[in-house]
Amino acid sequence: MDLVIKNGTIVTATETYRADIGIQGESIALIGHDLEGNETIDAKGLYVMPGGIDPHTHMELPFMGTVSADDFRTGTIAAACGGTTTIIDFAIQRTGQTLRQALEIWQQRAGGKVCVDYGLHMAIGSIDNERIAEMEDMAEEGVPSFKIFLAYKGNYMVDDETLFRTLLRAKEIGGLVLVHAENGDVLNYLINKHVAEGRKEPIWHALSHPPEAEAEATHRAVVLAGMTEAPLYVVHMTCAGSLDALKVGREKGFRVFGETCPQYLMFTMDKYEEPNFEGAKFVMSPPLRPKGNPEALWKGLTNGDLQTVGTDHCPFNFVGQKDMGKDDFSMIPNGMPAVETRVPLIYHFGVNAGRFSINRFVELVSTEPARLFGLLPRKGTIVVGADADLLLWDPKKRFKLSQKNLHMNVDYSPYEDVTVEGYPAKVLQRGKVIVEDNQFVGKDGAGQFLKRDRFRL
Amino acid sequence: MDLVIKNGTIVTATETYRADIGIQGESIALIGHDLEGNETIDAKGLYVMPGGIDPHTHMELPFMGTVSADDFRTGTIAAACGGTTTIIDFAIQRTGQTLRQALEIWQQRAGGKVCVDYGLHMAIGSIDNERIAEMEDMAEEGVPSFKIFLAYKGNYMVDDETLFRTLLRAKEIGGLVLVHAENGDVLNYLINKHVAEGRKEPIWHALSHPPEAEAEATHRAVVLAGMTEAPLYVVHMTCAGSLDALKVGREKGFRVFGETCPQYLMFTMDKYEEPNFEGAKFVMSPPLRPKGNPEALWKGLTNGDLQTVGTDHCPFNFVGQKDMGKDDFSMIPNGMPAVETRVPLIYHFGVNAGRFSINRFVELVSTEPARLFGLLPRKGTIVVGADADLLLWDPKKRFKLSQKNLHMNVDYSPYEDVTVEGYPAKVLQRGKVIVEDNQFVGKDGAGQFLKRDRFRL
Amino acid sequence: MDLVIKNGTIVTATETYRADIGIQGESIALIGHDLEGNETIDAKGLYVMPGGIDPHTHMELPFMGTVSADDFRTGTIAAACGGTTTIIDFAIQRTGQTLRQALEIWQQRAGGKVCVDYGLHMAIGSIDNERIAEMEDMAEEGVPSFKIFLAYKGNYMVDDETLFRTLLRAKEIGGLVLVHAENGDVLNYLINKHVAEGRKEPIWHALSHPPEAEAEATHRAVVLAGMTEAPLYVVHMTCAGSLDALKVGREKGFRVFGETCPQYLMFTMDKYEEPNFEGAKFVMSPPLRPKGNPEALWKGLTNGDLQTVGTDHCPFNFVGQKDMGKDDFSMIPNGMPAVETRVPLIYHFGVNAGRFSINRFVELVSTEPARLFGLLPRKGTIVVGADADLLLWDPKKRFKLSQKNLHMNVDYSPYEDVTVEGYPAKVLQRGKVIVEDNQFVGKDGAGQFLKRDRFRL
Amino acid sequence: MDLVIKNGTIVTATETYRADIGIQGESIALIGHDLEGNETIDAKGLYVMPGGIDPHTHMELPFMGTVSADDFRTGTIAAACGGTTTIIDFAIQRTGQTLRQALEIWQQRAGGKVCVDYGLHMAIGSIDNERIAEMEDMAEEGVPSFKIFLAYKGNYMVDDETLFRTLLRAKEIGGLVLVHAENGDVLNYLINKHVAEGRKEPIWHALSHPPEAEAEATHRAVVLAGMTEAPLYVVHMTCAGSLDALKVGREKGFRVFGETCPQYLMFTMDKYEEPNFEGAKFVMSPPLRPKGNPEALWKGLTNGDLQTVGTDHCPFNFVGQKDMGKDDFSMIPNGMPAVETRVPLIYHFGVNAGRFSINRFVELVSTEPARLFGLLPRKGTIVVGADADLLLWDPKKRFKLSQKNLHMNVDYSPYEDVTVEGYPAKVLQRGKVIVEDNQFVGKDGAGQFLKRDRFRL
Repeated sequence: MDLVIKNGTIVTATETYRADIGIQGESIALIGHDLEGNETIDAKGLYVMPGGIDPHTHMELPFMGTVSADDFRTGTIAAACGGTTTIIDFAIQRTGQTLRQALEIWQQRAGGKVCVDYGLHMAIGSIDNERIAEMEDMAEEGVPSFKIFLAYKGNYMVDDETLFRTLLRAKEIGGLVLVHAENGDVLNYLINKHVAEGRKEPIWHALSHPPEAEAEATHRAVVLAGMTEAPLYVVHMTCAGSLDALKVGREKGFRVFGETCPQYLMFTMDKYEEPNFEGAKFVMSPPLRPKGNPEALWKGLTNGDLQTVGTDHCPFNFVGQKDMGKDDFSMIPNGMPAVETRVPLIYHFGVNAGRFSINRFVELVSTEPARLFGLLPRKGTIVVGADADLLLWDPKKRFKLSQKNLHMNVDYSPYEDVTVEGYPAKVLQRGKVIVEDNQFVGKDGAGQFLKRDRFRL
Repeated sequence: MDLVIKNGTIVTATETYRADIGIQGESIALIGHDLEGNETIDAKGLYVMPGGIDPHTHMELPFMGTVSADDFRTGTIAAACGGTTTIIDFAIQRTGQTLRQALEIWQQRAGGKVCVDYGLHMAIGSIDNERIAEMEDMAEEGVPSFKIFLAYKGNYMVDDETLFRTLLRAKEIGGLVLVHAENGDVLNYLINKHVAEGRKEPIWHALSHPPEAEAEATHRAVVLAGMTEAPLYVVHMTCAGSLDALKVGREKGFRVFGETCPQYLMFTMDKYEEPNFEGAKFVMSPPLRPKGNPEALWKGLTNGDLQTVGTDHCPFNFVGQKDMGKDDFSMIPNGMPAVETRVPLIYHFGVNAGRFSINRFVELVSTEPARLFGLLPRKGTIVVGADADLLLWDPKKRFKLSQKNLHMNVDYSPYEDVTVEGYPAKVLQRGKVIVEDNQFVGKDGAGQFLKRDRFRL
Repeated sequence: MDLVIKNGTIVTATETYRADIGIQGESIALIGHDLEGNETIDAKGLYVMPGGIDPHTHMELPFMGTVSADDFRTGTIAAACGGTTTIIDFAIQRTGQTLRQALEIWQQRAGGKVCVDYGLHMAIGSIDNERIAEMEDMAEEGVPSFKIFLAYKGNYMVDDETLFRTLLRAKEIGGLVLVHAENGDVLNYLINKHVAEGRKEPIWHALSHPPEAEAEATHRAVVLAGMTEAPLYVVHMTCAGSLDALKVGREKGFRVFGETCPQYLMFTMDKYEEPNFEGAKFVMSPPLRPKGNPEALWKGLTNGDLQTVGTDHCPFNFVGQKDMGKDDFSMIPNGMPAVETRVPLIYHFGVNAGRFSINRFVELVSTEPARLFGLLPRKGTIVVGADADLLLWDPKKRFKLSQKNLHMNVDYSPYEDVTVEGYPAKVLQRGKVIVEDNQFVGKDGAGQFLKRDRFRL
Repeated sequence: MDLVIKNGTIVTATETYRADIGIQGESIALIGHDLEGNETIDAKGLYVMPGGIDPHTHMELPFMGTVSADDFRTGTIAAACGGTTTIIDFAIQRTGQTLRQALEIWQQRAGGKVCVDYGLHMAIGSIDNERIAEMEDMAEEGVPSFKIFLAYKGNYMVDDETLFRTLLRAKEIGGLVLVHAENGDVLNYLINKHVAEGRKEPIWHALSHPPEAEAEATHRAVVLAGMTEAPLYVVHMTCAGSLDALKVGREKGFRVFGETCPQYLMFTMDKYEEPNFEGAKFVMSPPLRPKGNPEALWKGLTNGDLQTVGTDHCPFNFVGQKDMGKDDFSMIPNGMPAVETRVPLIYHFGVNAGRFSINRFVELVSTEPARLFGLLPRKGTIVVGADADLLLWDPKKRFKLSQKNLHMNVDYSPYEDVTVEGYPAKVLQRGKVIVEDNQFVGKDGAGQFLKRDRFRL
């Protein structure tokens, strides 16, 4: 063996047990006791878990007249430091582009910079028959997941007929449709009205994106998924109403899945009323919600009604970007830094708080994203033959989540001064240590593009 | 290695992958590629899965004036042949006995005969302060699960205060309460009334045990579990109404779990109207249900609303036992042969029928029973350090489930002439092959008593 | 008193009692015992009920290249003969018209011909800011109810923003929005696809209008009504899924109301598979539904989840109209004759069948339509000061609902050979007998336009 | 006419209209305009409504070692002053008594003292075959409603078999079963435990009667009502969970009805933590509930999920009675003064607050109790032939609900200093003015026993 991880406690979505892991090249080659190798890492007192998989990031995304502050380099270094060894970002097709063109643009953007392995979803900004015809090609290229927007009227928003057709085609080719579920018609009306009538503070962002508009769109997408018998993945779910819609679908036997993000578990909409434009730091779509919703989402993670935790990582600097909307909430770039803090937050507020087991934690942040997006068992678990993407997790390590301790390329942290217990001691990707002592020690641009499998039961 | 399983496809609750398994003594010692051992078994074309765990059997149970037809020897040989390497049977405490006495009686009954590993739940027939005080002792003995009856008025049935107190105590000691959830008051009225008025055919058994009475009792038990914050396991759930009650509890964050059995998935209550007293073969409590219920249960298995498939295995011969109730349904011994056919039926009608993945199948018949009842990861999965209880599963093998092909000690099969695809090629327990070519080749009485861990999240 | 109705049993939404009714001119002037008048009608053995109010008819509607077969004369004579003394029809605004123009066109159409009193809803076919601005004028004219279509993509269908704005405006002016709730996007896709692929028989009409598409649109409209705190009336509800959506809204305190029609209570979609194009007689939108749905609707009428029974009366002759779609279901004019049979069917299959009381029957077919549409207490009940629109109902009279016994101007009856028990003996409008022995004896064109009040709690 | 009420606005459950009411003897004889009589009352500016009907009172009830503070004289004078002209009290059968004996005792207790008309429910404290056999006699005596307790273990509490049998018998004879729905087993455990462990302040009364225990028992009773197809009336519902149970039953088509009381609409359980034992004033069963529940109940009244508002009037003096439990909440007599304030509170916080219409108000406090308990149309509405029990309601009259302004024979008011707008100007019973200027001016003991009709749809 090239490398042996000794004396650790292996934790997967199912089991917690003591064994050594032997790594040959980039893969896990042997699991047993008392293994020997050219090199060894002593994992005594540590959990050895599969590396985190963040199914929802937006690195260097051109958006609202600016670009998200993390590029594929800084963002994936941050991901790695926080325990995430795989991201799935979004290629975004715009009017006039083919899907293939969009894919190439995004692969070029990532290539040479990306520091963890990555896959891409294809966000279809402008759908017509030709784009639908291209979906099979994308699946063949390892991009079998397609994002549709029910929000952003006048831009990405599609009508229900398009959603219906996309679902039908996805089902045929083993694709999985992702949906941004907010009723863009309602949002459009409210945003225009509030802005026109001079209500422009950050709180009006939330009041222009009411939870009912999300719940409604989620319900609609779930019903259409049921009608077409196509699988559906609802991104960034934030509220009890949406969760109800998803549950009803799942109980009918629809294959519908839901993702939430740490920010919706940690905060409520009173953040928007903080003085000095501080609320802008939390402006994103959907927005933070009224009290009660986070607890509903936590329950959904516990009882299986929600399947994954992603981040929708899309940071903008407070100075120079967020302040573009100083005088008008509708001009505040939407998004938050999140990719680095996801794993520690879910561990601390999930496992330490007694909400769910450490196995369920692994399932939420790694195994289930891998399963849904065609990466299991190469990623997302610890078995012989898998990539040796390993998180050596120190459950005793206390860490303060301040902007200066974190690696994301943004001038603030929404979690400033939150201290968590449990943090990566080391992170390995494909057999190489890439993080040690909260420093990235891997090779720049060594992340690989992942051709993902098609969706299956 | 003493023994290596080569070339198989390992299937667990989470992963499907190719690797060899090295066994040393009774345990899995090594997982890797190209392993070598003193002996090898070629598992090419086979799935290698953890042995089945049946969390609900009744071997040689004295009941209704007779004794269930399988003793611990015949019943566990049958279990093994059908792919089940662990059963959890019930010690049943009766008025005047301590729990310890009941435990000893049942251990003596099993000892020397039992051919697969076994645990025991403690069914408490008569609860008072002393029995509640004894619960901690039982947990210490590896029996941390306690069964309570809301049915069988005048016999085992307890009142809600007793259920409440048992739940509270179970929570304190890491115990798990199992509940037979039917409203015994309603049943008692209906049985007496129908018998008194001369309605004595088997169909009246079903009509005396309406699904509403089960749904009500399930709801009640779930509410009390929620109030006490104690975990609860509802045995043999049969109908959509009960499932709804469980779901509502789970959505509120209660730790409530449900088991169904193959017979409730395969049959409906029209069976009771078959001529020549054939319906008696299906008399059990709860009974078979109206159409629609099986599909609801299947959905529950698929979407996670139900957690396990047990059997409530409790066979009685058609001639000599079932016919005790020839003239009065209330005298028909309640129960069915089931332990041997569980794993193949769930595979065939679950996985082959496209209802769920093979991983979910493993979870339902092995992993989840292990987790809930304190056996994981020793049993219920395939990891280094676990008992080498392995099922070499031939997905191509077709098998006719007739009485003469099966090993249960009973004169009929409810599945006569049902043919399934997928059946055990070999079964190993703790490193030894105990089934080959549908024959038990293990050692009589070699099953071990399992001291189970207490319940945890 | 000009006229006294003696010896009858008065039945309202609340009470059943014996008293005489004295009529002076067009109104009820006195209720008491032993009243005397210039004329008397002996109502011994009869129920005296308020005349039926049909809140949903389409007389002489230009639609799908033809015109509905009843004009305001024949249709209202039929209405009267069946016990309905008030209809609310629809003025339909088309692109390029003002609401006022549409109103005038429809008043001209009805004027001089209409034989019972009538109101008009305003169906807005093409909404923009000017039309929304005009809503207040319409309310002022006694037309405070506005219909919106979520179906008929490319024609009447509006987007959600328009629905949202219309609801907001309706709330401000005391208006009530009516919605045709089917997802027009989904319908459009399915219709085009089935026709393009050669599936053109009547059954494909139903399969192009699935119940999920109705349930989804109902849910969406209900959510938007809740967000805007505007009242909403969902027309022609047909299925359990829609009813669920309405119920959820009502339980949240939204002021949302639902109408079903007799055809959805009486038939299921197997009608479409009848030979010889017979299914075309039942082609309408939404279509008939699978088994189970009618019983759900009946329950909704019983327990208050549904508020009214209308008809969507819109007959087309089988020969010469329905057969326009002989080769293509999408060319079959949508609609059915219904205005004459509504009251007897609901009485027979509601009251006689034990589903609800006679008071609830009166509420469903008369009082509640009056309340919701601003006619109570002038219409819809029996109190001093109300219009003397009275139904003298013979509960013993048996009547065969065949095309030749009915007065609607159409060449078939969907209820051919259904016999009901309970039928009008006489019908009075504003103090005059207008139906006797199943013959219209009133004056042609004597119906009056009703300026209705705005919606209030 | 003996008496004419002129110029008022008549308000019933359905209509609001202007007319005069002519009274001959004790009954309404004529409704019309410009009526003349020997006497007239000018009701200009007043609403004329049917007298209130309180379906749930306990006058001079021996309970917990004392007797409720209002006897049938003081209690019914108070009722009248508050606008209630009919009460339905409870005869309570105790072990060893026949139902007939209980009925006679309570009729003697009321006779000669009672100042408004009254009916009696039969509370069955100890049920056996003979008591069930007696139910038909009671119905024949005008007592067709039977109360069963699922609480008070060791006293009134019955098991589910008894509830089931009582429902079955009630259905056969046109009876209506009332149920006090709390799980007495759970309550018994909690009360004993808290008292034994020294937690004896009033708040522990609430914590011994958790809302889940009420919701569970309500659900159970509703399920059993559904199984037996018997009607059921759940008294004093207090919480969202119970309401959910009722709703589910009603949606399944069960004939189940719910009552709440003003105290559950007005207060929450923080009242129990008031200093100086003030919380004792609110000790009753079920207790006040956490925040959120009142709003759920109000919604239930608005949308029809709840049917009536009763009071459970059962006052005990703060000094001399409530203080029996100074040192132990379980010794505080359970109950509150309520009969006099019900009608004004529901008007003010229902109608004035915009929660529902004045017609719905009349339905809740008068018409629906009359309908369910076999008094309509003699009581509960305004029609010719009905008893002239009339409430002349002054919507402008402001009234402070303090103990000194009220007539109940108790030393405190829970509503001290609450001011309502809308109060009786005059109250008539059977044609006689019995309340004027907030003074009882009727004749002592002039109330009559009401033989009520059996339950029908």
